[in-house]
Amino acid sequence: MDEIRLTLDEAHDLAVKALMANGCDQRNADATARNMAGAERDGCKSHGLFRVPGYVKSLKAGKINGHADPKAERLGPCVVRVEADRGMAPLAIEVGRAPLIDAARENGMAALAIRRAHHYAALWPETEALAEQGLAAMAFVNSPPYMTAAGGKTKFFGTNPMAFAYPRADGGAMVWDQASSMMARGEISIAKRDGHPLPEGAGLDPDGNPTTDPDAILAGAQLPFGGYKGGAIALMVDLMCGPLIGEVTSVEAGDQDNGDGGPATGGELILAFDPARFGGGDAIERGERLFAAMLDQEGVRLPGRRRLEARKRTPSEGITIPLALHKTILDLSGV
Amino acid sequence: MDEIRLTLDEAHDLAVKALMANGCDQRNADATARNMAGAERDGCKSHGLFRVPGYVKSLKAGKINGHADPKAERLGPCVVRVEADRGMAPLAIEVGRAPLIDAARENGMAALAIRRAHHYAALWPETEALAEQGLAAMAFVNSPPYMTAAGGKTKFFGTNPMAFAYPRADGGAMVWDQASSMMARGEISIAKRDGHPLPEGAGLDPDGNPTTDPDAILAGAQLPFGGYKGGAIALMVDLMCGPLIGEVTSVEAGDQDNGDGGPATGGELILAFDPARFGGGDAIERGERLFAAMLDQEGVRLPGRRRLEARKRTPSEGITIPLALHKTILDLSGV
Repeated sequence: MDEIRLTLDEAHDLAVKALMANGCDQRNADATARNMAGAERDGCKSHGLFRVPGYVKSLKAGKINGHADPKAERLGPCVVRVEADRGMAPLAIEVGRAPLIDAARENGMAALAIRRAHHYAALWPETEALAEQGLAAMAFVNSPPYMTAAGGKTKFFGTNPMAFAYPRADGGAMVWDQASSMMARGEISIAKRDGHPLPEGAGLDPDGNPTTDPDAILAGAQLPFGGYKGGAIALMVDLMCGPLIGEVTSVEAGDQDNGDGGPATGGELILAFDPARFGGGDAIERGERLFAAMLDQEGVRLPGRRRLEARKRTPSEGITIPLALHKTILDLSGV
Repeated sequence: MDEIRLTLDEAHDLAVKALMANGCDQRNADATARNMAGAERDGCKSHGLFRVPGYVKSLKAGKINGHADPKAERLGPCVVRVEADRGMAPLAIEVGRAPLIDAARENGMAALAIRRAHHYAALWPETEALAEQGLAAMAFVNSPPYMTAAGGKTKFFGTNPMAFAYPRADGGAMVWDQASSMMARGEISIAKRDGHPLPEGAGLDPDGNPTTDPDAILAGAQLPFGGYKGGAIALMVDLMCGPLIGEVTSVEAGDQDNGDGGPATGGELILAFDPARFGGGDAIERGERLFAAMLDQEGVRLPGRRRLEARKRTPSEGITIPLALHKTILDLSGV
């Protein structure tokens, strides 16, 4: 596959231009481009520039508001709500971040409930940013159905990712971000594009039979990771970012969506915990002892290690994307 | 296997007598017996009277304080801490419940951080009790190592269960409670007792090789559910109920334990969320729509269904335990 090499700034600018050429203002375009360029920086192709055409489709359809003006309000001592104004989630998250951090430090813990947003992005950035401020964090988001419920044969939940972050002594973060499905949706799209089969257990064809064909799974349904236990996580994610905050379930997100393939409107929930208020006083040191003991085990790595390694390389080496994707994005930008 | 049938009251009294004959006061014995009899009522044998001998061992060894007097204090607007005084967790949880509920209703969400407790019990009761008060809830607890970290070959994490509950319109709860391991420890102990092999993927022998032999896995290590994703959940559980609240990791719990096979000293974290404060106003109705849509899917059930079904039966039918276990408990009671 022919590829083109870009600096991180070029990747960012490429995304900004495509978004702004399709009805996005600078502020919305910048926030979303930061998320995609950050995914490219971290070696996560499935949340990188690969996502630009999907955003553009929904901007063109008028489903996404490219001039969204998200507003944060305190619903109570430790609940911050952001009405995202049908914009892309990254800006809504940026608007809610400071009030969330303040509320968590004041009270010990706090929640950021984002409504009417379009989340189509890597999920780890929102938890990592909190851990870099010394807070532990969780995030939950759903989407239209792509995956069965535990025991089911047809689509019911989104891939319903959850992310978790814990602060490190060096000011960084241990972060994981995982779909409740065995595979991320973006990974399957990329396997389809590249003509690769998927592992057993990834999904079912439209008749509900197991298959390893990405096309059949995209038409059928993905499966939860780890059987019914991954299905239980998916259900929790759906409840936390949906019903709990007055937002849609995966099924409702799908029913209300225009089916253009771009991100649907929905909710997101982010939780932040201030270790300094939980009584230990040594939460970071204790965490470091745990991480060190993990790394002492042969074959064991910390979650997110590959992202951090890529992050060291890409500022100097740049990133690569398929030439065809590059051309598509330029075309969408009217260049 | 010869069995004896008991009423739920008889099951409770049997546990109370055994605990009180071994250094427990009435209050501590009652709280723990309620947990075990509740597990029997719900058809969960691995957390039922099967646990009595383990508690007794640790009471006799002086590891568990049978006269524990747990105290609750507010560390901040939404953090309640209970110092459990080296007692069994059920009493500490009961002591912390009312302040946790108050803090969650005042602030929108709250945490109960329990320290210096011995948790050897079913985990769902603490989240279910909160959901019955209209709150969504999560709980996290660890234990000495029984399971590998993702990628590891030897024991590193406890089975590190997590529980989640969401309130129902009828005043009940949707609850799940699942180990981060493919199987619960108690299930493996029972398979060993009954001479049954385990499914593929349940664990490794002491040389780090996959096996289905419960003896070899009890001597070796269990495996996380769903590969590295279950391992990530186990790591989150370890951090939330350990380092975050100034308590031990699984490894540290093991290092500090006397190895008597009874429950080790450690922490537990419970989170409560008041849907009324998250801005939707219709969180319960939205949850019910989700549950109804799940049940419309062929083959899909709600988590906890088997517990609720058993709960309908056992108050009239009673429960059964192996005759050998009954005799052991009577012997421990000095009867």
